[in-house]
Amino acid sequence: MNELCPTERLLMGPGPSNVGSRVLRAMSTPVIGHLDPEFSRITDDVCKMLRELFRTGNRLTFPVSGTGSAGMEAAMVNTLEPGDTAVIGVNGVFGMRLADTAARCGATVVSVDAPWGEPVDTGALIETLKKYPRAKICVVVHAETSTGARQPLEELGAFLGNTPTLFVVDAVTSLGGLPVEVDAWRIDVCYSGTQKCLSVPPGLAPITFSDKAVASVNARRTKVQSWYLDITMLQKYWGSERIYHHTAPISMIYALYEGLRVIFEEGLEARFKRHAEVGGELGIGLTDLGFTWFAKEGYRLPQLNAVYPPAPDTVESLRKKLLTEYSIEIGAGLGIVAGKIWRIGLMGETCKRASVAILLDALRRELRR
Amino acid sequence: MNELCPTERLLMGPGPSNVGSRVLRAMSTPVIGHLDPEFSRITDDVCKMLRELFRTGNRLTFPVSGTGSAGMEAAMVNTLEPGDTAVIGVNGVFGMRLADTAARCGATVVSVDAPWGEPVDTGALIETLKKYPRAKICVVVHAETSTGARQPLEELGAFLGNTPTLFVVDAVTSLGGLPVEVDAWRIDVCYSGTQKCLSVPPGLAPITFSDKAVASVNARRTKVQSWYLDITMLQKYWGSERIYHHTAPISMIYALYEGLRVIFEEGLEARFKRHAEVGGELGIGLTDLGFTWFAKEGYRLPQLNAVYPPAPDTVESLRKKLLTEYSIEIGAGLGIVAGKIWRIGLMGETCKRASVAILLDALRRELRR
Repeated sequence: MNELCPTERLLMGPGPSNVGSRVLRAMSTPVIGHLDPEFSRITDDVCKMLRELFRTGNRLTFPVSGTGSAGMEAAMVNTLEPGDTAVIGVNGVFGMRLADTAARCGATVVSVDAPWGEPVDTGALIETLKKYPRAKICVVVHAETSTGARQPLEELGAFLGNTPTLFVVDAVTSLGGLPVEVDAWRIDVCYSGTQKCLSVPPGLAPITFSDKAVASVNARRTKVQSWYLDITMLQKYWGSERIYHHTAPISMIYALYEGLRVIFEEGLEARFKRHAEVGGELGIGLTDLGFTWFAKEGYRLPQLNAVYPPAPDTVESLRKKLLTEYSIEIGAGLGIVAGKIWRIGLMGETCKRASVAILLDALRRELRR
Repeated sequence: MNELCPTERLLMGPGPSNVGSRVLRAMSTPVIGHLDPEFSRITDDVCKMLRELFRTGNRLTFPVSGTGSAGMEAAMVNTLEPGDTAVIGVNGVFGMRLADTAARCGATVVSVDAPWGEPVDTGALIETLKKYPRAKICVVVHAETSTGARQPLEELGAFLGNTPTLFVVDAVTSLGGLPVEVDAWRIDVCYSGTQKCLSVPPGLAPITFSDKAVASVNARRTKVQSWYLDITMLQKYWGSERIYHHTAPISMIYALYEGLRVIFEEGLEARFKRHAEVGGELGIGLTDLGFTWFAKEGYRLPQLNAVYPPAPDTVESLRKKLLTEYSIEIGAGLGIVAGKIWRIGLMGETCKRASVAILLDALRRELRR
């Protein structure tokens, strides 16, 4: 087998985003044991920084040992039991995936749909929740990675905060790029992935559970269907007891530790501002080149631009050419917009003026010749 | 938050084992996309090397995006449906965990027990399987990490090969340290973890499914209860179709790629011989110091020595002293032998004469003064 030497890429897809040198180097740190007191101090610090990131005081805040999808599954399997009702906002691939996963937990899924590219109407969600006052969870996707649309959360959270229903939010593509206010917005379970706006390699899923969510899980009639993701056991490893459950992915946790340090050195407000500004610059450049947006105005994510390229017949061929000839990765459309749109990410380390300049330069060359 | 600089350890516990510099460096390789054709070539090579390691031609052989426990869960959730019968050999913590996980899949668990430290009797397993000819799976743990006992597999595999029951083997602590012959022993599902005899950081679970196992999963009446671990979807990412399921943990796969290259440069036979020889040297030294073995003679794992230290009252205090004063990590006892035994690992990179010398020197100093 050959030496490992992949071509360096400018990662402007929907994730992974580019990973900075400090985080890459952190993964080369010698491995120590998952029950070593020194490792416990590192995980304590990681959990502390994740609480800052999620803007929460939730005790149970930790990285799930899997990718963002494992975070989604952890949210579903812990909160749902067979026969429960799950109200789910569906306006893209990740909402559909949530509905599929909830059904695999034996839940009855009540989906509240919206056209792809638009947020799910908060009024429609609240009306549905009034019809299902005993719904166990209500789930929405904060930043729908398949469409580039942002879902407003505050009004829904304020409503759910006064009901027994748990408010579950998919923040895979928003955390670290847009404000996510777990406590202020009364979110009960919120999960993300490391490879988007955090610019840490894929492999961990930060998650947080409110006391209301933990109490609900502790009151289950049945065991959590996943042994691996069962928070009734995981909380004893991530808490002060340090009871062995599974071997934590040490090197990935090193990477997350360093990635979070980088984030707090920049500061959350500055980071959100950077994402908004650089996203805005890309928007101006793309508009100038004849690109149009898939997501509805007012709900577009600066860090994930789902756009129609100006020449519909070269959507896929040009995307591939950008990868092979310019080493720029752009995401393809998923589901109903496969082959029709591009998804251009500007997340974390990728989100800088230089990325925009490199992409626009390549596009000008290819589209105008 | 401080710089990340954990103390370097000699990792002689039950895992993680020490990770070599080539593998540590591989993780610093720049991240590329999980759908990049260059990444597909890397994963193809990883799967090819995993087939060599498992000694199988099984098409569906890949690393699960989680630790060894996620591999266990993947084996259970894919093969079992509610109402199925699972015959499980239980002679330690990991057999108990399998029984727990199978029950969470809605299976009826028929456990065949043996005293901790002994293998489960193959005759007893076969007798039980004759009583349950429609059992969906029969599972045993090849190397019981809680007891240091090795489970013979060949005779059981030969029996199961002529039945509809799937032969599932936990090879978490054996793969790369002891021969694991998936095809020759007619194993249908075999999973492992990266952080034991492969000396890759924790975070991936190599797994392989025989055609008999894949056919059984494809004939399910119900969906796999885990979305994240569902091989009916995962096989489309790890196979030639390359259909997006979840974002693969890129940097961990780089580490596994390099770790497997290191393994095949040494050669499997040489590696097994090294584990046997170095394990034998540790055995002589420990016996000389008055240690006795927990596992039954003839079934002891050279790479994981479960031993009674000579002074029962200092089992835990001396273990902690080895960590803090000598930077040597030794594993504690689990379950019924908690506080009574040590588990001394000699896996992968840790398995060398120098590790034995360092440990024996520390023990001589502490036990004889």
